[in-house]
Order: sequence, then structure tokens, then C-alpha cells
Amino acid sequence: MKVGVLTSGGDSPGMNACLRAIVRVGISRGLSIFGMHGGLQGLLDRSIFELTARDVSNIVHRGGTFLTTGRSAEFRTEEGQKKAARILTDEEFDGLLALGGNGTMQAMTKLCKLWDGLIIGLPGTIDNDIQGTDYTIGFDTAVNNAVNAIDKIRDTAQAFDRTFLIEVMGRDSGHIAVHVGISCGAEAIAVPETPTDLNEIATIIKEGRARGKTFAFIIVAEGDEEGDARTIAKKLSDATGENCRVSVLGYIQRGGNPTQFDRILGTKLGAYAVECLKKGISGVMVGEMGGELVLTQFEDTWSSQKGLDLWLLGLVDELSI
Amino acid sequence: MKVGVLTSGGDSPGMNACLRAIVRVGISRGLSIFGMHGGLQGLLDRSIFELTARDVSNIVHRGGTFLTTGRSAEFRTEEGQKKAARILTDEEFDGLLALGGNGTMQAMTKLCKLWDGLIIGLPGTIDNDIQGTDYTIGFDTAVNNAVNAIDKIRDTAQAFDRTFLIEVMGRDSGHIAVHVGISCGAEAIAVPETPTDLNEIATIIKEGRARGKTFAFIIVAEGDEEGDARTIAKKLSDATGENCRVSVLGYIQRGGNPTQFDRILGTKLGAYAVECLKKGISGVMVGEMGGELVLTQFEDTWSSQKGLDLWLLGLVDELSI
Amino acid sequence: MKVGVLTSGGDSPGMNACLRAIVRVGISRGLSIFGMHGGLQGLLDRSIFELTARDVSNIVHRGGTFLTTGRSAEFRTEEGQKKAARILTDEEFDGLLALGGNGTMQAMTKLCKLWDGLIIGLPGTIDNDIQGTDYTIGFDTAVNNAVNAIDKIRDTAQAFDRTFLIEVMGRDSGHIAVHVGISCGAEAIAVPETPTDLNEIATIIKEGRARGKTFAFIIVAEGDEEGDARTIAKKLSDATGENCRVSVLGYIQRGGNPTQFDRILGTKLGAYAVECLKKGISGVMVGEMGGELVLTQFEDTWSSQKGLDLWLLGLVDELSI
Amino acid sequence: MKVGVLTSGGDSPGMNACLRAIVRVGISRGLSIFGMHGGLQGLLDRSIFELTARDVSNIVHRGGTFLTTGRSAEFRTEEGQKKAARILTDEEFDGLLALGGNGTMQAMTKLCKLWDGLIIGLPGTIDNDIQGTDYTIGFDTAVNNAVNAIDKIRDTAQAFDRTFLIEVMGRDSGHIAVHVGISCGAEAIAVPETPTDLNEIATIIKEGRARGKTFAFIIVAEGDEEGDARTIAKKLSDATGENCRVSVLGYIQRGGNPTQFDRILGTKLGAYAVECLKKGISGVMVGEMGGELVLTQFEDTWSSQKGLDLWLLGLVDELSI
Repeated sequence: MKVGVLTSGGDSPGMNACLRAIVRVGISRGLSIFGMHGGLQGLLDRSIFELTARDVSNIVHRGGTFLTTGRSAEFRTEEGQKKAARILTDEEFDGLLALGGNGTMQAMTKLCKLWDGLIIGLPGTIDNDIQGTDYTIGFDTAVNNAVNAIDKIRDTAQAFDRTFLIEVMGRDSGHIAVHVGISCGAEAIAVPETPTDLNEIATIIKEGRARGKTFAFIIVAEGDEEGDARTIAKKLSDATGENCRVSVLGYIQRGGNPTQFDRILGTKLGAYAVECLKKGISGVMVGEMGGELVLTQFEDTWSSQKGLDLWLLGLVDELSI
Repeated sequence: MKVGVLTSGGDSPGMNACLRAIVRVGISRGLSIFGMHGGLQGLLDRSIFELTARDVSNIVHRGGTFLTTGRSAEFRTEEGQKKAARILTDEEFDGLLALGGNGTMQAMTKLCKLWDGLIIGLPGTIDNDIQGTDYTIGFDTAVNNAVNAIDKIRDTAQAFDRTFLIEVMGRDSGHIAVHVGISCGAEAIAVPETPTDLNEIATIIKEGRARGKTFAFIIVAEGDEEGDARTIAKKLSDATGENCRVSVLGYIQRGGNPTQFDRILGTKLGAYAVECLKKGISGVMVGEMGGELVLTQFEDTWSSQKGLDLWLLGLVDELSI
Repeated sequence: MKVGVLTSGGDSPGMNACLRAIVRVGISRGLSIFGMHGGLQGLLDRSIFELTARDVSNIVHRGGTFLTTGRSAEFRTEEGQKKAARILTDEEFDGLLALGGNGTMQAMTKLCKLWDGLIIGLPGTIDNDIQGTDYTIGFDTAVNNAVNAIDKIRDTAQAFDRTFLIEVMGRDSGHIAVHVGISCGAEAIAVPETPTDLNEIATIIKEGRARGKTFAFIIVAEGDEEGDARTIAKKLSDATGENCRVSVLGYIQRGGNPTQFDRILGTKLGAYAVECLKKGISGVMVGEMGGELVLTQFEDTWSSQKGLDLWLLGLVDELSI
Repeated sequence: MKVGVLTSGGDSPGMNACLRAIVRVGISRGLSIFGMHGGLQGLLDRSIFELTARDVSNIVHRGGTFLTTGRSAEFRTEEGQKKAARILTDEEFDGLLALGGNGTMQAMTKLCKLWDGLIIGLPGTIDNDIQGTDYTIGFDTAVNNAVNAIDKIRDTAQAFDRTFLIEVMGRDSGHIAVHVGISCGAEAIAVPETPTDLNEIATIIKEGRARGKTFAFIIVAEGDEEGDARTIAKKLSDATGENCRVSVLGYIQRGGNPTQFDRILGTKLGAYAVECLKKGISGVMVGEMGGELVLTQFEDTWSSQKGLDLWLLGLVDELSI
């Protein structure tokens, strides 16, 4: 059984642990595993090479993806998709494992219709915005990266008695923002999924000061409907009379050695994907929900939005009294 | 409603986030929260003081427990238990929240029979050896601490082509060892729950060398039946002809800023415990299983042993080919 | 001997270790030490309180400054300076220790002329832009914070084969940029002290690609004459045809637990400042140069610019071949 | 000019940054650089390979040494030394760069007498016990590793009001212990260079308790004349009546990504060694003293012991009041 594997879209920590599991468990169970360089474009460019157990030595603890990744404009065309299917057939692949986010699962939905080999997806993205798994590979590390950065900013916030607006990743979803906000004891969390009321946040800041709070953190998902952190900071500065500071965490959230959570999740899903391939399963993404390994049809992973934990988000006001 | 709160047994990272949630959500919902200093002994010594929302400022991100903790010899006697019940009645407490491990849940089982106030337990221990919750508060941080330490040792292992035996915490259980071992790509994991075959491990080391592996990690839970890491290293050195090195991670696993996982788990369980108290619930430990907040009778939290993920442990051989 | 101590300007990691040394060595040698809250404004507002040995417990390892800091508009006026001198006399202070950056040393230059007590400065700023000391308290931590952040970004740079422009602190000086750039293996370092040639940098990027380099880091001090990282990235994207990415590290550089270097430098300079006060020395900043503790007249600390290590900066081209 | 390079003795963080500087600056200045695998034994085994600029990509930030290292029993014999000289001549080497500690400098002292090529040493060891440089490559990282570990243990020490004995590396010298002890606010530091009085330490612990200190750290260099941390803990437990706890930090001190200090020191010394080779200099170790790059005859690097900063060590009592 000849199986291709690729990482697509943004890199996320834990992808390497997952690739290691795929390659080693795959080889151990009789598969031949071939890596594709640079995501779907690597498939289109036939940049494909066989992987041995030694090729994945010493990567379980590393961020990024040793296969490298990318976004392929060519694959977005129908032409490109047909070409990918043709190459998979030409090269006599039996299966394909694709590790990536939302966009990758959409790409696989299309490829499934054009190629009759087995395709299994694995959720690798820091955004945690995929249905069919409680957590995506990379989310835990990204949140911890943000939390550790904010723990540092706390020193300056305290030293200056300041209010800080901190922008975290999340163009369409507030999963990172909610986890970061609760973890850092934020006074408010602005996310795209729920209406953000800047007057209310201004009141929270002012009333907190009145109760003796010396500094405040407002966490902003980059996709919040009121604008990015800089825009919101300006409005809040006007509304509160304070000079609110801004920190945009950016790329530091994406990298670094993965946490144990992401190494283990990546390892489990990688091994499970191999088990499923061996059983002839196709057209699904592997995931973990409620502690169980589960399968979800590609279409169901991206066609509806994954909800936030609204109970947790609703606690913010009480937690920051 | 007057509610006492204490942390007992070993400290674990995330306890402070949990205490903050208890105090703030508690106050916000009309409770008066009183801290007890140094665990159960603090109750026995009437070292009790009211907590305000400001008293838990700036602790969400800190390891340890600001209430301090301890193990009370006095409470282990029937006399001590009766005295504790008497003090709770004398001081007109309506409820008690106890954050700790196995031993704490056993203590609460006894106290429930002697005092008619509401008692709720919260699982705070790095060992993850309590039934009724998938993860205990502190486990994720402890595993990450160990993993980060081993990522450093990896540099030396590689530089010298060495085999390292690494001892992690876990006197009666291998939860930490399994998570650490999978995360660090260990060649073998020795835990108390399953038989440890040193001949087999020696073979794994020697065969790995033959396949081109340049170094190896063996993770040992301190309670493994073959002995501690030093003892096992000696036997493996004899069996392999290599000079196997040892590192005992010890206390560094317990401390440090909690991860986002433990801050959030602590926060959720703290808030949930307050909600349960308000409903008059008693005699149970709060926990999270399969993503749901759940309650477990005190006795059921410690009377049987929590199983390891044997599927994951069984993958070790294939993952380290 | 009654001595005041304050931290002024931006907070920097190691200030707390320095304050601890001042308080404890001071008390041990018979001084009474009084903290001023929030920098020079605290002095002007008579927000002054005596410090005991216990008040500086458990801060040696913490970033920020427990005295809090600030920039005082009032002190910038002649009126304000006279008021400060008057308060110091009124409150019967014998000495004042001021921990801060460039601006703080300028303030002390002025205060020296208006008050006849003993004044000693201590260099606390992440910018390392003060003459009279090889390194300022906080510089080493700030550089390490930036370096650790870039080590994470490296994963994404590698995964995507990208060029990253990374902006570090340094409005008027490139000390942080040079140390960060060398430490991260940057292809080029843009600093205010030397002319920045974007065409040359574009050529370096393109020629590096031709030699097989898969990604590149360009470090930009925020005060570079060619603009901030975003501006430079745009020009370089045009010149190279690549989509150069930007990361502005911002406040995360300032906070976090200090490194051993800053804890020790802070401790040494704090103890030395006390020794100097006891000897009746005044009008100088303490520092460490070439491994020796030294004194520099206030005016000489800020009247000329501290040079970069040009030999080191000149190595960048060869180091990144 | 054909130049060999090897790393010998214990690995130390920053060695890779140093090797990168040697290879790239060397090649840039017309040298051919050849790596020797596994230290002096690699030379003896003719395990020698040419290094290109690309071979040292992506290692500036990594601990360990990509050349790997080792201790060679063969080289310790006169026979072995002669063989090494013969191979260097056979292979037509013009120069040799050796990166290592005390033992490496002793080996080079001998090799200099047997081979007439140019030999330059570079100080790479975490112990900082070499004359001719203020700091060795790796010392700063090792101290920070230890300090970060103890910052974690602090949480448990505080939570339990405990005294902790912490053993750090340093078989013959207390450099690490002194830096760690000052950085962590230790109550006492036991080093081989000065007499350790356990009665005095017991008194310090007891008097600290009486003054309101809730926990204590005693830092022990592994080579202290009173024994290792476990032995000392037992005696102190008897003398104080407390149950003193022990943590032996071990190998975690040696690994991990190097700090900016060690990356820069490694880079500077690597580039400087190349410059010296080009000038025909031989028989010396490069170092940095008082901010200047300096050369020291091999024999002078190890024939006398490098002193501790006794002023700093003498401050411990006052700093921990």
C-alpha cells in the first residue's frame, strides 16, 4: 500500500509528531509512506520522496513541519484538482493523508470526488476552528505561547498600572482568544462570534479601577467585528481617558516546540489515521471528541462553525471582579 | 452562606487559578469565602481568614498555592477528624471546598460522615490518579515541565550518543510517565501498572543501535516494580554493555507557572464547585470527563485505580522503530 | 542615614533584584531605606514608605518593579525639580538612589544641582544606551526574550521558506538589534547608528536564495532611519519579488523573569551603590565595565552616545553566507 | 589552508554557534574546514569530513554540538597523541581548532609538542573553570537552566514552607553555584573553594525562620567537601529539626537552546580564532576578558585555578537577611 502524506496551510506545532507517527506506525504495518514537499503544490510538482523511519528521527519535539507547507493557487482551480488526481493515479498511490486546517479539509472534499484512492484528513491548525475534533493539533501550543507572552507583558502592565489590549490570532473564530483570556485573567474578551460592546468594556475598565484594580488586560481576536486591537485601543482610550497600550502577538503564537498535549494528540491521530487507512476507510477526518477517537465526513468538518464554550466566556465578568 | 476553602497534599500548578475562581465567582454569587492556611492542619488550628476579590489578584498565572498546603498527621486520627467537624460547626460554616489529591478525597469521605455541612472536592494533583476526571489540575503542567527538561537532556544524549534513563514522578501510577514517554519519543516506558521486562528493554536499545539510532530515552515512573531509575540503569548497563546515564527530574515537575490547560481546568472546576454548592450538592468531587463537567461520589474517586491509555502505551514500540 | 529609592522610566527585568540588594544590604549596614511609589512622581506626591527586609522577599526572580514606575511630567519642569529637592530636605533624607535609563540620569543631573544630599544612579533599562556600564540591568533579559520569540518564528519561516522582518526595541540605538541579530543568525541588521542600504539587503536575500538558503531573518531596530519593519518589508518585497513577512515583538521584550545575568548585575550594582553611599559618594552612576565596578559622573552617562560593537556587526555578512 | 575542528569533553550550549562562526568566517576567508566526529577519537579514527556553509545552517540556536563529542581514552596515552599528530600531518592539515574544557586544553598542550601545525583552543564548558576568559561558552546557559528550574521549585518550597538543598554542577569549582545562589536568593552557597560550615548554615536557617522567612534555598556545588546535597541535607535536617528536601538538577543544566550570551560569545570566539589562525598564531586559547578578545598560552589556562568572585559570595549573608 503506497501512501502519500502532506502538510498544507499554516504550519502548526505538533505536525512533526503526527508525521513521525504516520511514518513509523505506517512502515511498521507494511505501508510505504511518501512525503510531498510544500503542501498540495508539492503533489502538483511531483516533489515526492519516500520516507524511512530514520527520516523522522528527532522531530517529535519540534514545531513547524519538516515537509514544509504552503498554499497552492494552482490547486484552487478545477484544472489543478484534476491534475492532482491524475498524478496520484499515475504514481500508483493507494492513499493520501493530508494534515491541515479548514482549507485543507475543503480541498480534500474536492479531491475525493476526482480520485478513487483512500483519503484521510488530520486536523492541524492553531485556530481550532474545525468540526469533528475537540482540539486541533497546534491549538494548545499556540494558546500557551500567547499566555506565556502575556505573562511577560503583565510585569510592565503592573509596573505602570496600565490597560493593555492584546491581539491574538483568530480571523474567523475566538477559540484562541477565549482560552488566552481566561488563562490570563482578562477583564474582557472580544471575539467575532459574539457582539463586542466597547462601551461596556470601557465601563468594566473604569469600574475595575474604582474597585482597586491596578491594571487590565483586554484580549482581542484579530477578526473581531469592532476592528483590530489598535482600533479598539483608540476607542477605549477615548472612552476611558486612559492611554491604553497595544500588543499584537502575531507569529510567535505559531511556532516553538509543541506542548505535550499537541505531541500526544498528533501522535494519536497519526497512528489512528494509519489504522483507518488499513481498514479501507476514506473521505473522513480523524479527530478526538470527548476522549474518543472519531471520524467525520470531510464536508461536515467545515460546513458549519464550531461553537465557543459560552459558559466559560460568560464567566469572564465574575472572574475579573 | 459561609464557605471554607483549603488546599491539601502536594501543591499542583493551577491550584491558584482554581482558588481565584472559587473566591470571585463565590463572592459574585453571594457567598462568603474563608481560606484555611496550610491545608487541613490550618482548619484544625483555626488558621482561617476571610478572602476578598483583591486577595486573589495576580495569582491566576502562578504555580503553588497561596493558601499553602501540608499533610496533617492530626487529621489522620479519628480525634482530629472529629475536631475538624466541631470547628466547622463552631465557626458556623455552611460548606467546605477541598482541593487536593487522592488523600484529600479520602479525608473528605471521612469528614462527610462527621459534619453535616456541604463538602465538595476538587482534583488538584500532578499525578492524575483520581477517578472522576479525565485530568487533574496540575497534570498537564507537570508533564510539560518534564518534557521541557528532557528536550534539554536530548542535546547531551545526541552529543554523546547515549542512552538515558529518566525518572519522573508517579509512586503508584504511570500517567505522567506515559505522557512524557510518548511526548519525548521514548524507546520504552516503565510503569507500575504493567510488568516491566528489562531484558526486552535491553533488546530494544541494542536493536535500535543496530538500526542506526544514536541515542535512546527510557522513561521510568518512580514507583516501577523493577526499582528506581538508578537501579534499572545499572541492570540495563550490564545487559547492554553501554554506560546508561540517569536523570531524576524530581521537584522541578511540580512547580512553575501553570499551562493554559491547567489554568482553564482549575477555573472551570472552581466555578462549577461554587455552582454545585449553591444548589446544595455535597459529598462529591467535581471533574471533567469527555468534555463534560461531572460529579463523582468521594468514595468512587479513590476506591479503584484509574487506568492508563493502554492503546497509546502499546504504540511505543512502533513509534520508536 | 535615611535613603530614598525609586525606579523611573521604563521597567526593566532585574530592577527587583537590584531593589532587594539595596534594601537588604542597606539595612544590614545601618541605613533606613524608603521606597517611592511610581518613580519621580511618587517623590513629588510624597508617596513614600519605609521598606523592611521582608518587603523584598520573593522578588529577586520577578520582572517589572515592585515600586512601580512612571514618567513624571511635573518633574520635567524646573518647578517640579525644586519641589522634589524641597521634599527630600523636608523629609530629612540623606541620600537618594535612582534606578532607570537615560532620562533618569538626566533628571538626577538636575536634581544634584538643587539638593545637597547624596545621589547615586543605577542603570536600569533594556536599551543598553547609557555610557558608564558595559551592560544595563534588563538588557540581557530583553535580548533573550526577543531571541526566544524569534526561535519560535523560525519554525514558521522554515515551514514556508519565508523572509521575515523582525522589529525589536531601540528607538535611538541598535544594541538590542545587534545582539538579537547575531544570536538568531540574521542575514542583515538595520540600526539607527549606521546607514541602512535596502538595495544591499535585497541583494543579500536574493543571493542567499541562490546559494540554497530557504529562509531569511532581517532584524530592524524600531528607530532605523529607513523606517519601521512594516515600511522596510514593503520596500524589500518590491525589490526581491518575495512577500516578506513582518513581526513586531513589542512589549514582550520588556517583561518576564530576569536572566541570571540581570539578577546578578542588579544585585552587584545595588550592593555597590549602598557601599558608595556609605562612603559619602554622590553625583555618579554605578556601573560595571570590563568586569570592574566603576563610577561615572551623571553628565557623562548621557551626553555622548554609546557605540555599538562594530567588529561584531561587521561579521554579519560572513556569518550568514 | 586546511583546518580541522572538533568539540571535545562535555557538550555545552553555544558550541554550535561557535562552530557555525568558524565554518562560515573560515570559508569566507579562504580556509577549508573539516569537522572531526565525536571529539579527539574522531581524529584518531579519521572520521573527518569537509564542512560547507550549508552544513552549519540552522544550528546557531541549538544546544549540544552537531559534530558530537566524547572523551577519548586512546588520546590519553602517549601512543594516541603521537598517532593524532601523525594523522594531522598525513592528512595535510595546516591547523586545528579544539573546542572544549579543561581537559581539552591539557590535550592541546600535549599535541602542540608533537605536531607543528597551528593549534588554537576555544573554551567550551559549562563549568567556567578555565583561566584566560571571564566566561566559557555554555556557562551562562547552564546557570540560567538551573535558575529557571529553581524558580519552579520555589513554588513548592513556598507552598510547604520548606528548606531545599539544591545540587548544581561543579565537581571542582563553585562558579555555577555562586551565580545560581545569588540569582535565586539563596540563604547559603556551599562550594569546594571555601570551607563549608554546616553548623553556621543550620544557624542561618533557624534564625531566618525566627525572622519570618518561610522557606530557604541552600545551593550545593556537587564537589563540595562536606558531601553532595543528599549528605548535607541529612546533616542539616538533624541540626535544624526540619525535614530538608533535596533536588539534584543534573543533566538539565547542560542542554537546551543557548542564551544570547553564549551564542554571541561562541560567535565572537569562533570568528576570532579564525582571524588568529590566518595570522599564524598557535599554542593558545582564545578568550574574552574585561570585554577584550585575548589569547592565553594553553598551559596557563589550566595550571592554576580560576578564582570565584569572593566579594559577591561574601554578600550572601546580607542579601538573605
